Amino acid sequence: MSTRNLSADSITGAVIQRMRRAKSARFKQVMGSLVKHLHDFARDVKLTEQEWEYAIDFLTRTGQKCDDKRQEFILLSDTLGLSTLITQMNHSSKDEETEQTVFGPFHRMKAPNFPLGANISKGVRGKPCFVSITVKTAEGKPMRNATVDVWHSDAEGYYDVQHKEWKGAHKMRGVFKPDSEGRVYFWTIVPLFYPVPTDGPVGELLKASARHPMRPAHIHFLVAAPGYDRLVTHVFDKNDKYLDSDAVFGVRSSLIREYKRQKQGTAPDGSTCKTPYWTVDYDFVMRPLPGKAKKKAVARKGSKTAKSGKQGE
Amino acid sequence: MSTRNLSADSITGAVIQRMRRAKSARFKQVMGSLVKHLHDFARDVKLTEQEWEYAIDFLTRTGQKCDDKRQEFILLSDTLGLSTLITQMNHSSKDEETEQTVFGPFHRMKAPNFPLGANISKGVRGKPCFVSITVKTAEGKPMRNATVDVWHSDAEGYYDVQHKEWKGAHKMRGVFKPDSEGRVYFWTIVPLFYPVPTDGPVGELLKASARHPMRPAHIHFLVAAPGYDRLVTHVFDKNDKYLDSDAVFGVRSSLIREYKRQKQGTAPDGSTCKTPYWTVDYDFVMRPLPGKAKKKAVARKGSKTAKSGKQGE
Repeated sequence: MSTRNLSADSITGAVIQRMRRAKSARFKQVMGSLVKHLHDFARDVKLTEQEWEYAIDFLTRTGQKCDDKRQEFILLSDTLGLSTLITQMNHSSKDEETEQTVFGPFHRMKAPNFPLGANISKGVRGKPCFVSITVKTAEGKPMRNATVDVWHSDAEGYYDVQHKEWKGAHKMRGVFKPDSEGRVYFWTIVPLFYPVPTDGPVGELLKASARHPMRPAHIHFLVAAPGYDRLVTHVFDKNDKYLDSDAVFGVRSSLIREYKRQKQGTAPDGSTCKTPYWTVDYDFVMRPLPGKAKKKAVARKGSKTAKSGKQGE
Repeated sequence: MSTRNLSADSITGAVIQRMRRAKSARFKQVMGSLVKHLHDFARDVKLTEQEWEYAIDFLTRTGQKCDDKRQEFILLSDTLGLSTLITQMNHSSKDEETEQTVFGPFHRMKAPNFPLGANISKGVRGKPCFVSITVKTAEGKPMRNATVDVWHSDAEGYYDVQHKEWKGAHKMRGVFKPDSEGRVYFWTIVPLFYPVPTDGPVGELLKASARHPMRPAHIHFLVAAPGYDRLVTHVFDKNDKYLDSDAVFGVRSSLIREYKRQKQGTAPDGSTCKTPYWTVDYDFVMRPLPGKAKKKAVARKGSKTAKSGKQGE
């Protein structure tokens, strides 16, 4: 099939046809659908050349805003609801299992390990907060071999990476291992609601959309354990005013808890608090990886078959 | 409407609803359609988190590959057929008017001005080529006030910006004004077919698609004149082997001409050629801007109405 003289209609089939020799069936499926929907969008609105130029420039600036501490494309995906869509499609958790929500752009690899009871926000101003969670199976079995990665904003709504004067120091984040009862507990400060970064292309888009950039206060958790679905979630503050208009569409009722004010005195870990402090807790229930036993059986039959569903490249 | 507890289905309407206060009706139309098609695509293929992460990384690298001499997002748009779709939708030229094709990623603003008959490829190795074109209206009237911007690859298939050792010098490109008969003519070298740049994300995509990256040899023209549709086009080489499989889907039969080998002797401009040389010519017919008179009338009635169709931001 020649690719000459293509019209606004025949172009779509021609592009898809040119990918016919791609090795991966999944790659062909994903790219074929992408080309179809991308072209349908352009035809649907009869996209002008000026708008196309704006889009090229917007995407270029979005890529160039990214570095090792900022991921503007994830932020774009979050604010366009794509991240929540992907999360919901890929983690249909049962009632008792903890719901997932968006990953967000502020996670950092290699956050420091802390012992249980440590303070991950030493020297940072804010209301002292004792966080206590458990990691268990649906049957209530503690998961001692889990890894719990925590990160959140400060009392002004900024993550450590947004404080340039901190020069890359890790604050309000850390990695923990549960005790024999599946418990993880630590001191930090109460997080505040905050705007997603608006000094880049995503801010421009939100402004044109007449949308506010606010996210309700939350602590991020990434809980991983062999044989279980990686749990990416938040624990939101029950009293936050943005719970029903989260800029990234991530709030789930099951993830809301009260950050409770406590009088000064003996804290849950036995330490003495000379000022009022806050507490919050959550019991995470992990989801076993679906069809794990089944996959192993397929792999034994023939590893090529098991791999053929993977993305090309 | 709350944005809490959104599912893989309800997320789409919620995102669109959040843009309801955007000032520009066109912005709402374009973004609403974009969100719908983006989400439909993700649902259609049930995009996995691993694939989403790959896409985020791919787009980030595409943006970061761009600089003042390289536009990887235009290249992506070209190779996915989007550029040809946009061109075809926005320039429905009549039979006698010259067809448009893709802009490509290698145009440079502020190329040097040249007098008619100049050599735009001085010091560059290649077959000498005398290019002769005319710029006229459909009624055959010469358009002396047009500006003709020309650029093309060298005899090895590279544009000047791809030769790092040339340190930004302009070669195989220039800007001309037609004479009183609408003619533009100049010396250059015969361009060669070439691969689009494959050292970036687009190259990765073409490889996974089992597609070759080649474009048939051509000279780019951008012809502009007040009151006329900006003409972005190529003149392709009739004998090129890639005419029916152009990696960016840009070939149109009406734009193909022979680059003719001529014996040494007196060239068309009266100069003496001691070696064989090549000639190519094309008569461009410009399209008057549609509804120009009509637009003016609307603007007189009320300028706010005339502006309301423009893109927000």
